[in-house]
Amino acid sequence: MAEETTTNQPLVGIIMGSQSDLKVMEAAAEVLDVLKVPYELTIVSAHRTPHRMLEYAENARKRGLKVIIAGAGGAAHLPGMVASLTTLPVIGVPVKSSNSIDGWDSVLSILQMPGGIPVATVALNGAQNAGILAAQILGTSSAAVADRLEKYKISLKDKVLRSVEELKRGDMDVD
Amino acid sequence: MAEETTTNQPLVGIIMGSQSDLKVMEAAAEVLDVLKVPYELTIVSAHRTPHRMLEYAENARKRGLKVIIAGAGGAAHLPGMVASLTTLPVIGVPVKSSNSIDGWDSVLSILQMPGGIPVATVALNGAQNAGILAAQILGTSSAAVADRLEKYKISLKDKVLRSVEELKRGDMDVD
Amino acid sequence: MAEETTTNQPLVGIIMGSQSDLKVMEAAAEVLDVLKVPYELTIVSAHRTPHRMLEYAENARKRGLKVIIAGAGGAAHLPGMVASLTTLPVIGVPVKSSNSIDGWDSVLSILQMPGGIPVATVALNGAQNAGILAAQILGTSSAAVADRLEKYKISLKDKVLRSVEELKRGDMDVD
Amino acid sequence: MAEETTTNQPLVGIIMGSQSDLKVMEAAAEVLDVLKVPYELTIVSAHRTPHRMLEYAENARKRGLKVIIAGAGGAAHLPGMVASLTTLPVIGVPVKSSNSIDGWDSVLSILQMPGGIPVATVALNGAQNAGILAAQILGTSSAAVADRLEKYKISLKDKVLRSVEELKRGDMDVD
Amino acid sequence: MAEETTTNQPLVGIIMGSQSDLKVMEAAAEVLDVLKVPYELTIVSAHRTPHRMLEYAENARKRGLKVIIAGAGGAAHLPGMVASLTTLPVIGVPVKSSNSIDGWDSVLSILQMPGGIPVATVALNGAQNAGILAAQILGTSSAAVADRLEKYKISLKDKVLRSVEELKRGDMDVD
Amino acid sequence: MAEETTTNQPLVGIIMGSQSDLKVMEAAAEVLDVLKVPYELTIVSAHRTPHRMLEYAENARKRGLKVIIAGAGGAAHLPGMVASLTTLPVIGVPVKSSNSIDGWDSVLSILQMPGGIPVATVALNGAQNAGILAAQILGTSSAAVADRLEKYKISLKDKVLRSVEELKRGDMDVD
Amino acid sequence: MAEETTTNQPLVGIIMGSQSDLKVMEAAAEVLDVLKVPYELTIVSAHRTPHRMLEYAENARKRGLKVIIAGAGGAAHLPGMVASLTTLPVIGVPVKSSNSIDGWDSVLSILQMPGGIPVATVALNGAQNAGILAAQILGTSSAAVADRLEKYKISLKDKVLRSVEELKRGDMDVD
Amino acid sequence: MAEETTTNQPLVGIIMGSQSDLKVMEAAAEVLDVLKVPYELTIVSAHRTPHRMLEYAENARKRGLKVIIAGAGGAAHLPGMVASLTTLPVIGVPVKSSNSIDGWDSVLSILQMPGGIPVATVALNGAQNAGILAAQILGTSSAAVADRLEKYKISLKDKVLRSVEELKRGDMDVD
Repeated sequence: MAEETTTNQPLVGIIMGSQSDLKVMEAAAEVLDVLKVPYELTIVSAHRTPHRMLEYAENARKRGLKVIIAGAGGAAHLPGMVASLTTLPVIGVPVKSSNSIDGWDSVLSILQMPGGIPVATVALNGAQNAGILAAQILGTSSAAVADRLEKYKISLKDKVLRSVEELKRGDMDVD
Repeated sequence: MAEETTTNQPLVGIIMGSQSDLKVMEAAAEVLDVLKVPYELTIVSAHRTPHRMLEYAENARKRGLKVIIAGAGGAAHLPGMVASLTTLPVIGVPVKSSNSIDGWDSVLSILQMPGGIPVATVALNGAQNAGILAAQILGTSSAAVADRLEKYKISLKDKVLRSVEELKRGDMDVD
Repeated sequence: MAEETTTNQPLVGIIMGSQSDLKVMEAAAEVLDVLKVPYELTIVSAHRTPHRMLEYAENARKRGLKVIIAGAGGAAHLPGMVASLTTLPVIGVPVKSSNSIDGWDSVLSILQMPGGIPVATVALNGAQNAGILAAQILGTSSAAVADRLEKYKISLKDKVLRSVEELKRGDMDVD
Repeated sequence: MAEETTTNQPLVGIIMGSQSDLKVMEAAAEVLDVLKVPYELTIVSAHRTPHRMLEYAENARKRGLKVIIAGAGGAAHLPGMVASLTTLPVIGVPVKSSNSIDGWDSVLSILQMPGGIPVATVALNGAQNAGILAAQILGTSSAAVADRLEKYKISLKDKVLRSVEELKRGDMDVD
Repeated sequence: MAEETTTNQPLVGIIMGSQSDLKVMEAAAEVLDVLKVPYELTIVSAHRTPHRMLEYAENARKRGLKVIIAGAGGAAHLPGMVASLTTLPVIGVPVKSSNSIDGWDSVLSILQMPGGIPVATVALNGAQNAGILAAQILGTSSAAVADRLEKYKISLKDKVLRSVEELKRGDMDVD
Repeated sequence: MAEETTTNQPLVGIIMGSQSDLKVMEAAAEVLDVLKVPYELTIVSAHRTPHRMLEYAENARKRGLKVIIAGAGGAAHLPGMVASLTTLPVIGVPVKSSNSIDGWDSVLSILQMPGGIPVATVALNGAQNAGILAAQILGTSSAAVADRLEKYKISLKDKVLRSVEELKRGDMDVD
Repeated sequence: MAEETTTNQPLVGIIMGSQSDLKVMEAAAEVLDVLKVPYELTIVSAHRTPHRMLEYAENARKRGLKVIIAGAGGAAHLPGMVASLTTLPVIGVPVKSSNSIDGWDSVLSILQMPGGIPVATVALNGAQNAGILAAQILGTSSAAVADRLEKYKISLKDKVLRSVEELKRGDMDVD
Repeated sequence: MAEETTTNQPLVGIIMGSQSDLKVMEAAAEVLDVLKVPYELTIVSAHRTPHRMLEYAENARKRGLKVIIAGAGGAAHLPGMVASLTTLPVIGVPVKSSNSIDGWDSVLSILQMPGGIPVATVALNGAQNAGILAAQILGTSSAAVADRLEKYKISLKDKVLRSVEELKRGDMDVD
C-alpha cells in the first residue's frame, strides 16, 4: 500500500447525514491522519438527498474507495442504505444527535440490519474506532498500515503505563 | 370519492420489506376491504431491492396512489426511505420480526425520523390501524369513506357493549 | 384547495396538553405557515379539561378541521383520546416534558394504541414533522399544497448541498 | 362498615378496557370476595366507548362506589382518564396484553400521570394487589375490613412458614 | 372529618429514605396543606434505620395514621417494606435520586411488589400526586375532604382555561 | 477451615423469598456441595415474614454463618434488607420470577443499593455464581476452600477444551 | 486471492465462547462456504480459557488469518478482548444465549468498546452478516471475492423479486 | 487481623480501566481508610494493557491480596476478565463513564457473567459500597474488621437520626 502514502487517492469515504454530525465524525478523520490513510469526508443525507446517497454508494468502489464510514443519528438509515448499494465494507457510527432518545434509536437502526446486508457498527459516537477499524481493514492487505496500527496500539498501552506512573508518584497513603 | 368504488384504481399502496411480514401486514388489507378502499399490496425491500424501492416511491403519486403503508422489522428503513422519496403521506408499521429485539429496533428506526421527513408511525404490528389511518386520510376529501369510518367506529363500540352484556349475564356473585 | 389560501378557515387543529408544551409544539405552526396551511392552536388537557377535550374532538369535523395535531408528555392521553372521539386523522407528538422518563412514557402512551383507534405518531418532540404530515394529508386532495410540499422537499435537499459545498471549501487536508 | 356485609351495594368498581383483560382482572374480584368487600365488574373502553367511560366515572361517587380499579394494556388510557373525571381514588392495573411491548407501554401510560391527577398504580398484571389496596382504602374507615386485612396478612405469613417446614422435612444434605 | 380541621392529629405520615429526598417529597406536604389534611413528615431509612422503620410502620395505625406516603430512590425498599408491616394503604413515590439510573430502579423496586403486599405507586418524583391520592383515600369517608378535592380539581381546570385565554390573546397569525 | 469439612456447621445461609425461587436457587447449593462448603437453605420472605427476616439476618453472624446468599424476584427487597441488618457479606441473586418484567425489576432492586449497604449482586438467575462467590469469600481465609476453587476453575477449562476436541473431530469442511 | 481458492489456508477465524453458541455461529461458516472463503471454526472462552484466547488472538496474524469473527452471549468479553490482543479486524456477534437478558447484555458488552479498540459489531444473532462482512473485508484486496459478493447481492435481490411474483399470482382481490 | 493494622501489606487491590475512573473509584479507597483496611490502587486496562491485567490478576493471591475491586465503564471487561484469572473474590464497579449509554452497558457487561466466573457487582458508580463489601469479606475472618464495620453501620444510623432531629426542629406547620 505504498501508493496511499504517495498519492492523495482516498481509500476511505467518511460520510454523515448532517453537518451537525461533524463534531462527532471528525474523530474518524483525525485517527486516519495519524495512521496515514488517505480519506475523503462529506455530507450525504439518506433522507434529504437520497439520489446523492445512491450515486455515492454505487460509485464508491469504482472511484477507488475501499471502505465507507457512515455516521448518523436518530432513525439512522444512511449506513444501512449505503450497505444495500455497495459490496464494500460499511462501518456505521451511531451518533447521539439532538433528536435521538439517548442514542438508542441511532444504535438500533444501524446495528440491527437484516441478513444479507451487514453494517460494521461501532459504539455510540465511536468515530475514532470507526477510523481505526477502517485502517485495520486496509491493513489486511497493506503491511505498512498494519505496522502503523501496531505502533498505534503500543502508544495506547504506553499512555496507560504513564498514567500508572503518575498515579504512583502521587499515591495515597495506605495504613 | 365515488370513483374509487367504481374502479379498481388503488389509492393505497401497502408494501413490506419481506414475505415474512405478510402475516402482520395483511391486517391492513383486510380493514381496507371492509372500508371499501382500493389498494395494492406488494413486497419492496429497502436493503435488497433499493432501486425497486426508489421507483416505487417516486412513481407512487403519478400512479394515482394517495397514501403508502410500509411495514418492516429490525433496522426498518423502508418507511423512512420511501418518505424521503415522495411527498405522499407514508404510514409506517413496525413489525416484530424474528430478527428484532422485542420490537424496539423496528419502532425506533421508523418513528425517530429527522425533521423534514415524517413517517406516520402506528403501534408495533399495528397494521390494522395503518389501514384505518389510510382511510381517515382519504376521508378528509371523501364523504363516502368518512361515512364508512363512522360506521366502523360504531361497530367497535357495539362490540364492546355486547361483551358488557355477555359479562353481565354470566356475572360473578358479589356479597 | 384555493380556498385555504384565500380564507382563514383553519384546516389543522394544533392542540397540546399544557402551556409548557408550547415551545415544542410551535414548530408545527411554523412549518404550516411556510406551507400556507391555515391552522388554529390552543390548549386542551385530557386530564384537567376532559369535557373541553370531548367537545373539541367531537366538533372538529363539523367545524371544518381536516387534521388534528395533538402533543402531550408523560402519560400522554390527549392524542389517543381525541382519536377515540373523531374519525379525522390524528397526529400525535410525544413531548419530552419535565415529568417524563426520558420521553419513553410519552412515546409509548401515544404510539401503542389498540386496534381500531390509530394515532399517527411522529418522533419525540417532532412537531415540525407533525406539521409536514398534516400538509401531506391535505396534499392528497390539494394540488396547491402538494406543490408546496415538493418545493419544501427541494429546499431541504438544497440546504444539505450547500453544507456539502461549505465543507468542501474548508476541507481538511488528507495525506 | 357493617352495611357492606349485609347489602350488595358495591363499594369497588372493577373495570377493564377489553374482555381479554378479564383473565388478569378477575384476581381483583377474587381477593375482594375473600375480604368480603362488595364490588361490581364490567368492561369500559376508553377508546371504543368514551362516553360510557365518562358516565361511569362521573356517576361513580353518587352511585356509592368508594374506589375504582381500572385495568388496561398497551397505550392504557382508562385508569388516567377515569381519574380525570372523579375524585375517588383510582387504582390502575397495567395489563400485559397481546399488543403490549413486554408491558412497558401499559406500565408507563398508567403510572406517569401529570401533577393533579393521581392513579394508584400496582405491578404489571397485579390485579390481586389492586383488590387488596381497595380493601385497605376501605379499611381506613371500616374496622371490619381492617380486621379481615390483618387476618389475610397473617395467612400470607402462615403460608410461607408452611413452605419453610416442607422444605425442612425434605432438606438436602450438607457436608 | 371535622375533627382533622380542629386538631393536629396527623392522618397522613410522609416518610422518606434520606434528607436529600426532601426537595421532592415536600410537594406532598404542600398539597396536603392546601387540602387541609393534617400530616407528619420525617425521615425513615429502610437500609440505615431498619428498626426505626419497623416501629414506624407497625405503630402507624394505632397512632391514628390512616395513610402512609413513602418516597425513596435507587433500590427503593422503604415503601414496600412499610407495606409489609402494616395494613394501612401505602403510597410509594419513586424518587430520581443522584444514585438512580434515570429513575428506572426507583420505579421498578417500588411498583413491582409481589402478590399480597400492594404499594400504590405514583409517577417518578410524583409527590404532589401522592398527597392528592392520600386525600382521595381520606375522602372516601370524609365529605369535607371530598369537597375540597372537588374544588381542587376545578382549580386545575380553571388554570388550564386561563392559559387558553392567554394564548388566544397573544395568538399567532394564521393565514 | 478444617472444621467445616469435619462438622456440619453451616457457613453459608441460602435464603429465598418464595418456594418458587427454589428451582433457580438450588444451583447455589449444588455448587457448594461440589466445593464441600457446608450451608443451610430456607425460605425467608421480606414482605410476608419481615420479622423472620429480621431475626435471620441479625442472628446470622452469632449462629456462625459467614456469608448469606439471598435470592428474590420482582421488587426484590430481601437481599438489601438482610444487608441492612448484618455486617456479613450478602450476595444477591436476581430471580426472573413469573411476576418480573423480564428480570429488570429483580436486577435493579437488588443491584442499586444506596451508599453504606452493599449487596454483592450476580447475574439474573446466577445462583451457581452466588455459590462460587460465597466459596471465594471463605477461600480468603481457608486454604482448603481456595484449593478446591482452583480445581473447580481447572475443571471449567477442561470442559471447554473437551468441547474443542469434539468440535474438531466432527469439524465442517472448509474449502 | 487466487491462493485461497487453491489451498485450505483459513483466512477467517470463527470463534465462540461456548459450544451452545454453535447453532447461531454456524451461519457465518455457511455463508463463507457459499462465498468460497476458507475459514476455521473453534471454541475459545474468554472466561474459562483466557490463556487459550490470548494465544489465539496474538498468533492469528502470523498464522495467516485476516479477519476474526467472535461470538458470545451475556457479559460477552470475547470479541473485545481478542480485539485488544490483535490489530486484525474483529467482527463481534452478540448471541442471545440462555443467560442473556433479551440480548441487551450481549449487544452492549460487544458494541460499546472504548476508544482505540474497535469491534465491528453486527446484529443480535447476526452470524450470517458477520460472514458476509468478513468476505467484504477480504474483497477489498481480492477481486475474486468481490465478484462473488456482487453475485450474492444479486441473488438476494432475485429472491425478493421471486416472492413479489409469487404474491402477485396469488394476489388478494381489491374492490 | 492485627497484622494489617501494623503493616502496609495491602489486602485489597483497587484497579480501574482508565485514569478518568479515578474520581469515582477513590470512594472505595476512602472508605477502606476509614475501616483501616490496607489497600493498593492502580490503573489496569483490560483493552490497552491486557498483559498487565493478566499478570496483576494471576499474581494477586500470591502477593497477599485477599480481594480485588475493579471498576470500568462502557463495554467493561476488566472485572470479568480479572475474575477469569484468579479465584479471589472480585468486586465489580460499573462506572458511568463518558462513553457509556447512561450506564447500562457498564452494568450489564459486569453483572451478566456466565456460570463459573462470578463478579460481585455493586451499584452504578457504587465504589463506596465496593470498599465496604471488601471489608465485609475480610471481616469474615477478622474480628477487628468486623468490629469496625459494626461501628460504621451505627454511624450511618446515627447520621439518619441526626437528620431526623434537624428536620423536627425546623418542621413545617401542619393543621
